[in-house]
Amino acid sequence: MSSATSARDRLVDAAQDLFAAQGVGPTSPRAVLAASGVGQGSLYHHFPTKHDLAVAAVGATVDDALARAMRTLDSDSPAVERLVAYLERPREALAGCKIGRLTADQAVMDDDGLHDVVTAYFVRLLRALTQIFRETDLPDDVARDRAHAALAIIQGGYVLARATRDPGALAAAVRGFVGLLDQGPQARNEPDRPSQHSTPTPKENP
Amino acid sequence: MSSATSARDRLVDAAQDLFAAQGVGPTSPRAVLAASGVGQGSLYHHFPTKHDLAVAAVGATVDDALARAMRTLDSDSPAVERLVAYLERPREALAGCKIGRLTADQAVMDDDGLHDVVTAYFVRLLRALTQIFRETDLPDDVARDRAHAALAIIQGGYVLARATRDPGALAAAVRGFVGLLDQGPQARNEPDRPSQHSTPTPKENP
Repeated sequence: MSSATSARDRLVDAAQDLFAAQGVGPTSPRAVLAASGVGQGSLYHHFPTKHDLAVAAVGATVDDALARAMRTLDSDSPAVERLVAYLERPREALAGCKIGRLTADQAVMDDDGLHDVVTAYFVRLLRALTQIFRETDLPDDVARDRAHAALAIIQGGYVLARATRDPGALAAAVRGFVGLLDQGPQARNEPDRPSQHSTPTPKENP
Repeated sequence: MSSATSARDRLVDAAQDLFAAQGVGPTSPRAVLAASGVGQGSLYHHFPTKHDLAVAAVGATVDDALARAMRTLDSDSPAVERLVAYLERPREALAGCKIGRLTADQAVMDDDGLHDVVTAYFVRLLRALTQIFRETDLPDDVARDRAHAALAIIQGGYVLARATRDPGALAAAVRGFVGLLDQGPQARNEPDRPSQHSTPTPKENP
């Protein structure tokens, strides 16, 4: 890795941390510069404006989060198992979702380029979740609604946890939702994939 | 109403509007004063500090929201009808929840008095929703989880709507969740209240 790349990466890392801790609006490029430890020239060389820095940092956060989500959502497990594994993944509830919280950050919502990065994240997740529900033989519109519900559970669970200071609130919301999925006619035993269920493979999802 | 009361109310109204539009952190008492049109003396007479003004304004927003929610949740309709009426209530999705958004406002989260007001709102709603699910003969822990899920759907639906710029995202999440409730064994026809279902009363919820 060249030192130029490294300085850029350190700036992006520092911006990701500060944005997560205090929001994009209140974070100055000067604070990012101080936290990164790189020289001032590197900041303006790589990111002439705060907008450029924010797009790079929020983009990196989105890329990381999508890669993690897709490892679960695109695995070889049966559809509902993938979904439940995604929903039940351990999350730092009291920290809030690094990306969802940006929707309350007016500096992000007012910046079309930044807002586009946030939109792309949720559109991509909704598409993957809709596809999972389609695999359970639901009609397209029902699959789409249910994908919205699944994603809303996570985002709303974060809000509840922060609001009530109860880190268990997110897990409770997920349990409530998964319990409703389990009582449905398709539940976790998908009728169109009987062969996957004759062989128990509990270790498929890392 | 005395002019003193009126000045206080105008300050609180202005603060509620500005907090909803731009957050508590970035809103200065000076901006609230300007928007309210009252004299500077009234501001410092009624609210010596920004904290006092914020507690009063966020408290008023919480009181309004709770009163509206309880009219639906405490009505005489059967439990699941009250729940679905609450979930399906029209909401300004793109504006976000005036109270839920405060959980992303570090100035609110860092102020114990303000945070308490936000916590009380969600705890009160969770209690009412848990009670509704208990009425459908669910065990206490399942009722509590499902209450978290119901509230998370609303809060997460707001986040999704703002993130994707799609006002329909909140309604889609609610439809996805209500669809799951409908397919359960208790669904909308509560077995322990058959008499209420022999007489159709579609107008019970205003």
